Amino acid sequence: MPSALILIADGTEEMEFTITYDTLVRAGVDCKSAFVHNDEFVTPPAAKGSRGIKIVPDVYFEPADSGPDKFDALVVPGGAKGAETISQNSAVQKLVRDYLAEGKLVGMICAGSLTALTSGLPKQPLTSHPSVIAQLQDEFIYSEDSVVVSNNLITSRGPGKRTIDPNTPFAKALASGTAFPFAFKMVELLCGPEKRQEVHGPMVFPAGTPW
Amino acid sequence: MPSALILIADGTEEMEFTITYDTLVRAGVDCKSAFVHNDEFVTPPAAKGSRGIKIVPDVYFEPADSGPDKFDALVVPGGAKGAETISQNSAVQKLVRDYLAEGKLVGMICAGSLTALTSGLPKQPLTSHPSVIAQLQDEFIYSEDSVVVSNNLITSRGPGKRTIDPNTPFAKALASGTAFPFAFKMVELLCGPEKRQEVHGPMVFPAGTPW
Repeated sequence: MPSALILIADGTEEMEFTITYDTLVRAGVDCKSAFVHNDEFVTPPAAKGSRGIKIVPDVYFEPADSGPDKFDALVVPGGAKGAETISQNSAVQKLVRDYLAEGKLVGMICAGSLTALTSGLPKQPLTSHPSVIAQLQDEFIYSEDSVVVSNNLITSRGPGKRTIDPNTPFAKALASGTAFPFAFKMVELLCGPEKRQEVHGPMVFPAGTPW
Repeated sequence: MPSALILIADGTEEMEFTITYDTLVRAGVDCKSAFVHNDEFVTPPAAKGSRGIKIVPDVYFEPADSGPDKFDALVVPGGAKGAETISQNSAVQKLVRDYLAEGKLVGMICAGSLTALTSGLPKQPLTSHPSVIAQLQDEFIYSEDSVVVSNNLITSRGPGKRTIDPNTPFAKALASGTAFPFAFKMVELLCGPEKRQEVHGPMVFPAGTPW
């Protein structure tokens, strides 16, 4: 059974986290959420999402238990504040490099893609939420696709238009529009295209849904 | 500011809950989640979703604090076990009738639509997850649309094909494919079509997404 470690922090976009975790579980992936935190523990121990939903992590993030010897994939969701906490964590940065060096998958969505930058990954195709384009576009081969696969690094947007002014409230409202296609791509790469179809079918999206 | 009470239970489909709550918050709706439970409290107090994500409710469900004098909308998410708990709760059933009698909105998605039946609502257009069609199709004017608006009762499917054999694992895998259009319909009815567009824009879905 493939496995995935999905990071979460205060400020994580709860739809991006939940859609990814839930869809991977449907595909039979053994998912574990790990709470990356800066401050003292809260009681009860829950991460407060960008829209206020409080999610209890499966574990607290512990680098020694989070390596590519333990999981087949590492996922960094978006949400501005959550992505900042996760992307600035030096243990997470090392894990990102370790996972890719070991041929394991790393997924980043929305502002989570900042972690590619902070981890010092080499220049390669990548996408992100438009609000963080300025930090990423010179360091990576920036794409406007909903989901970008660059070897074992999978990134996704949230919103889809690069032309959004990153200083507008429009762009600052972090989005989750590509969370489903991102989750399905992770399923496809971890479990194969047949499993993707098997999971996708029963969720039957409205006619014309482009994923 | 419009307000919404979103019910949650052990076994609630966490994507349906999260997408609805998060999208309504983006529209400025004051959301509160209330834990409907059968057994003793768990510690820490969290509802365990259908795929294992543990969500801390804002409050425990208390009928006296949940009426149409307190909120503009009541939402029942799906997930087989969660929908069973919620739909069988007599206080919830009374609230559903009270909300509709007071001209407030009631939203039900997936197996959550069973609550229309248990609340004794009159025959009217409705949809649901295919796995519960057999219980609903004679009592309601069953529709295969992704989202059905019948006066102030808004229902949604999850999956979209009535022809699915309800006895197959395919149908039993409760789905969330229509959670976004359901959430946007709730935003439109609570906050107006302009707000729906305002919230939809920054979440920019991939080109061709039919909602």
